[in-house]
Amino acid sequence: LLTVVTGAAGFVGQALVRRMVETGYAGQVRLVDRIAFGSCPAGFETLVAELDAPGSVEALLAGADRVVHLAALPGGAAERDPLASRRVNLDFPLMLLERLAAAPRRVRLVLASSIAVFGASLPQPVDDETPSSPDTSYGVHKAMTELAVADAARRGLNAVAMRLPGIVARPRGDIGFKSGFASDLFWAIGTGERLTLPVSAEATMWLISARCAADNLLHALTLSEAPPPVLTLPALRVKIVDLVAEAARATGNAPRIRYDPEPAIEAAFGRLPELRTPAADALGFRHDGSLEALVQSALQSHFAKEIA
Amino acid sequence: LLTVVTGAAGFVGQALVRRMVETGYAGQVRLVDRIAFGSCPAGFETLVAELDAPGSVEALLAGADRVVHLAALPGGAAERDPLASRRVNLDFPLMLLERLAAAPRRVRLVLASSIAVFGASLPQPVDDETPSSPDTSYGVHKAMTELAVADAARRGLNAVAMRLPGIVARPRGDIGFKSGFASDLFWAIGTGERLTLPVSAEATMWLISARCAADNLLHALTLSEAPPPVLTLPALRVKIVDLVAEAARATGNAPRIRYDPEPAIEAAFGRLPELRTPAADALGFRHDGSLEALVQSALQSHFAKEIA
Repeated sequence: LLTVVTGAAGFVGQALVRRMVETGYAGQVRLVDRIAFGSCPAGFETLVAELDAPGSVEALLAGADRVVHLAALPGGAAERDPLASRRVNLDFPLMLLERLAAAPRRVRLVLASSIAVFGASLPQPVDDETPSSPDTSYGVHKAMTELAVADAARRGLNAVAMRLPGIVARPRGDIGFKSGFASDLFWAIGTGERLTLPVSAEATMWLISARCAADNLLHALTLSEAPPPVLTLPALRVKIVDLVAEAARATGNAPRIRYDPEPAIEAAFGRLPELRTPAADALGFRHDGSLEALVQSALQSHFAKEIA
Repeated sequence: LLTVVTGAAGFVGQALVRRMVETGYAGQVRLVDRIAFGSCPAGFETLVAELDAPGSVEALLAGADRVVHLAALPGGAAERDPLASRRVNLDFPLMLLERLAAAPRRVRLVLASSIAVFGASLPQPVDDETPSSPDTSYGVHKAMTELAVADAARRGLNAVAMRLPGIVARPRGDIGFKSGFASDLFWAIGTGERLTLPVSAEATMWLISARCAADNLLHALTLSEAPPPVLTLPALRVKIVDLVAEAARATGNAPRIRYDPEPAIEAAFGRLPELRTPAADALGFRHDGSLEALVQSALQSHFAKEIA
């Protein structure tokens, strides 16, 4: 049993690899990324390749039974360079779908999609019936890919696009995500530094810890029944001021946070309504469960050493 | 002023060219198709080229002020060959959007989209807020293109995707459209032949004549204000038995029509609910106005000679 992970050196990829090791994930694993791997667990194979270079897709798919496609150009970078976003966030997933549709063996493909497909104008509540309405090039390419995944699934491919919410806590200086401030606040509180957030204290976000996101991806890989082709993952709806208070409580540090809302950021990331995910819930996908658990898990991710 | 028409030798393209001549459309016109043109009005330029061949897009766009992109792989053919549909119905429109976004001159781009983006499960009524929910590869590629058109328009491109309803009366033997039976019945009634329709007498469709579709495309090209990036065109909602009766009345022939509904065809094309198109209505787009006018216009299209 061979599982392939693209974007494996990235933030979510690293969390996934860690959870594979911790949970004793069965079979061989091939980690693929365009950047070299700092380290790699014993027995894991690595492949360093540009995904759209000639031969890359054949090399990465060779012998695969399961594929987790995490490689992406994040939202901020995609907005600055929509042509690059098209190559990474649209053309490569389409190529994966086409290759797997033509492959003789039945492969389960799990692709990372994003709540960015919803855009900023959201009904109350958002649920599994809410249509996508992206307002960024990143969200547009993710929504286009979802359409292609659903069509490939209709034709028999075992594929699911999982809409990931905001994931905390990304490493400091992780660039490209405009919603990165939700991760920055863990750093600031952990180290006692000052931080000005671009949203109001009352801003609401949908969040999941990297560890919990990884567990949901593993669940999608190993689920016995074929999930629906597009799934919105459960997420905790968190008010920023509550997140700050819980992070302060958990670390014992006094928060030195100021709120200076930027209207565009507040509109895009700070007004998320209630989220209902009955399809994912019924299949056993879970968010962190509580604000306390979310914060614990975020603090325990790979930058925890530096804070402690 | 140079207007470029792709798919100009096709059914809608020919109707568009005819209306350009009849209405004294201003400026130069370049007609582009992969198949040779049977004839071409005086003063019109023609270009025979495969759209995705090297250099084609540069040649067809050279000097263009307005572009109407009609070239497409129709629904039935797209369903049989989704990779070809991707090339024609997705990759080429995306290339057009990217080239025009990078072009120094401001070009108005009008792309033919389709009510196929809605799929078969429709709310009552369908309106401008109804989300797309395609269930065919053709509809999926059209919906993906619409997302890209909206994103390009957000970035400043002057582009609009027009959702065309069923268009009558396509030439006899025109292949590739599963909804072609709505055209076939004009032939059968015009010639007095027997025809078995794959829908029930009570089936409802959204129809427009080719002439009226052409007039709407010309309207989109010449509208002074930039239209919204995705527009559903108005269409007459017609019950098949009424269409048969009106065609019989107009031709003076007794219809020899049997109804033998195929569930898949009836579901996909025969249960269309009320259609509301306030955005297009407000901008002056129009359907044929009445069943009588629709049938007259359909009968007068280029196969009328043969019937008469």
